[in-house]
Amino acid sequence: MRVIALNCTLKRGEDPSSTDRMLELVGKYLLEAGVDGMETVRIANHDVLPGVTSDEGPGDAWPALRARILAADVLVLGTPIWLGQHSSVCKRVLERMDAFLSETDDRGRTPAFGKIALVAVVGNEDGAHHVCAELYQALADVGWTIAPQGGIYWVGEAMGRRDFKDLEKIPDKVDQTARMAASNAAHLARMLQQSHYPGIAMPPSGD
Amino acid sequence: MRVIALNCTLKRGEDPSSTDRMLELVGKYLLEAGVDGMETVRIANHDVLPGVTSDEGPGDAWPALRARILAADVLVLGTPIWLGQHSSVCKRVLERMDAFLSETDDRGRTPAFGKIALVAVVGNEDGAHHVCAELYQALADVGWTIAPQGGIYWVGEAMGRRDFKDLEKIPDKVDQTARMAASNAAHLARMLQQSHYPGIAMPPSGD
Amino acid sequence: MRVIALNCTLKRGEDPSSTDRMLELVGKYLLEAGVDGMETVRIANHDVLPGVTSDEGPGDAWPALRARILAADVLVLGTPIWLGQHSSVCKRVLERMDAFLSETDDRGRTPAFGKIALVAVVGNEDGAHHVCAELYQALADVGWTIAPQGGIYWVGEAMGRRDFKDLEKIPDKVDQTARMAASNAAHLARMLQQSHYPGIAMPPSGD
Amino acid sequence: MRVIALNCTLKRGEDPSSTDRMLELVGKYLLEAGVDGMETVRIANHDVLPGVTSDEGPGDAWPALRARILAADVLVLGTPIWLGQHSSVCKRVLERMDAFLSETDDRGRTPAFGKIALVAVVGNEDGAHHVCAELYQALADVGWTIAPQGGIYWVGEAMGRRDFKDLEKIPDKVDQTARMAASNAAHLARMLQQSHYPGIAMPPSGD
Repeated sequence: MRVIALNCTLKRGEDPSSTDRMLELVGKYLLEAGVDGMETVRIANHDVLPGVTSDEGPGDAWPALRARILAADVLVLGTPIWLGQHSSVCKRVLERMDAFLSETDDRGRTPAFGKIALVAVVGNEDGAHHVCAELYQALADVGWTIAPQGGIYWVGEAMGRRDFKDLEKIPDKVDQTARMAASNAAHLARMLQQSHYPGIAMPPSGD
Repeated sequence: MRVIALNCTLKRGEDPSSTDRMLELVGKYLLEAGVDGMETVRIANHDVLPGVTSDEGPGDAWPALRARILAADVLVLGTPIWLGQHSSVCKRVLERMDAFLSETDDRGRTPAFGKIALVAVVGNEDGAHHVCAELYQALADVGWTIAPQGGIYWVGEAMGRRDFKDLEKIPDKVDQTARMAASNAAHLARMLQQSHYPGIAMPPSGD
Repeated sequence: MRVIALNCTLKRGEDPSSTDRMLELVGKYLLEAGVDGMETVRIANHDVLPGVTSDEGPGDAWPALRARILAADVLVLGTPIWLGQHSSVCKRVLERMDAFLSETDDRGRTPAFGKIALVAVVGNEDGAHHVCAELYQALADVGWTIAPQGGIYWVGEAMGRRDFKDLEKIPDKVDQTARMAASNAAHLARMLQQSHYPGIAMPPSGD
Repeated sequence: MRVIALNCTLKRGEDPSSTDRMLELVGKYLLEAGVDGMETVRIANHDVLPGVTSDEGPGDAWPALRARILAADVLVLGTPIWLGQHSSVCKRVLERMDAFLSETDDRGRTPAFGKIALVAVVGNEDGAHHVCAELYQALADVGWTIAPQGGIYWVGEAMGRRDFKDLEKIPDKVDQTARMAASNAAHLARMLQQSHYPGIAMPPSGD
């Protein structure tokens, strides 16, 4: 089982981001739960063009990223919070997955069917539940399976400015949540590898 | 496998509601997908008291409903849309499930672990994706597993007043969506019956 | 200028709630900004029936509450956060305001036109921005004017359990936010008293 | 009074977009309500860099756009809906406005204080209320005033594919909503020009 983690920070480059630290935590527990390895991609370092198809033409970094995402069994979608919402970089990734809806097989299954999504969210002070809601919905819409308690998050006190990457120690509760989410995702992924969703008979096209 | 459908219409009594019609559609396809039966409960006909515990005292209808919900393998949570949001009746059901978070077993699993949730939403004109987002998040938070494309919905044109219950024919796309959601939910439920989430080792309590 | 504050805690009775403490803070600064007085109503102590009309019949506490709300110039809608969302009690208040949409005058203005809404939100750990979003939208839809930075909130660190009512001291930033929101709301209310929205010519009914 | 409309379609170039058509409708009624002119900017044709400051360095189109936005009295933020949410282009615009929070004057007022925001949303089938909620919250957070019923939208029937730009005729209800929103925004803008928000005394900096 392979995992791909997408870091949707707004920051280009390689400076450590809070989202990175959260993805590392989730990755640690996914390995503990039996996955074979995790690669992480910082989306802002790739030129993902705006659009809702799987290939927006010359210079579009999405086709290569899309292939890597679909080669994995588990997706960890990581995003910072700005103004209480997920980042524009994360939003763009979801928009590009919209194309999955028209890439179904003869049983109506999108390319994400049988794959598990986790959500990892960090912010200074507020917004994690909402970001989980938005990501769960967009991901489930295009075919990902959402593990129970599959959102791992940290935020500080209202109107605060502390960053997750600067915490001396990851709080026990956050650690435990990451471990549970990883355990659930690995269990689901293992089962869906053994037995794929059957899908349904589709009407002859022409719609 | 048993299914329970909760109709969170604001209307007390037995008059047909659009949410009922949607739940019937989902129920039909869950039976086709192999579940053994579905019961439907109209929450507004029960006195579910405000609160976030599993028993809010004398006159509270929740403890009995809670038992019926947890006796099922699949939950279909059905709600109308008002002002673009799920109903206050639906919101109350979710609030009462908040108690699951402190009702975990020795492996940290809530009573909803291993169970599947589908969401059924009807409105005149708008709001279905958002309601799915809100419900997915609240349900996943307390331990339900969310099937891919597990939201079945209908809305009409912007600012319209047509009701789903009055449509002459259910649109083909809605029918197909219900069938797919039911197939996915039944598949997941069957697999999780065979192999429960393992959960994680919990720290000694005292937290 | 009069203010009405609605406390949408789930708790019936008179025990102090965190929402109360937040409403008191906002009230203090509204008085400083020139309003003449604020009354607070705990909705859970009134039997607001489910529905979307202005009078749901015998036993419905809404008609009397509705009159008090519309006698005020500024509304402070206060709610706790559960599962990252506003309370079912708050949701019910919004649903009952849905009726405003069909109670327009000959210039298409709902009963909330010319009145200002503030939002006050408290939770243990997360959800304030989202609750503000939901309340702004529902309130603006039915005709309230939303003051800039009109959401006052407090939440603690992720997965925490501290209550706003138990804080030794209200954080400076929260205090300052309340003061600004109150100043903005009082300014808008004063101006709209001097010059009401003109509304628009409405087509002859029959729609 | 000047208006700026931002078209946050994902489509670069000049092909007509549904969002354009909606912005034209709102513009028509803003002129009727007394504003002096509206310019429209298609954001996707400008290279707005990711980030949360007012200037992200060489090649960043935001500083020039920011100046044009702040030269206007009314903002119309127009976005398509993808997966039930606002576009990544729109999200980026909001992120860049996050910088307003640290660009306050000596009375704590952000650059958006005294300015009005309207929201214009188009999608094939669902999502308008939620997008309004998200935009209202982000805009109000950074200092815009939200007019009552300030969201103008169109969506078609669930799972449909019709585009607003292809409608033979704009529905009467949509037309009326645009007219009301424009009237309300112009009234508020006029009043706030006459009498600016007073703001509050700020603590000496050092925070």
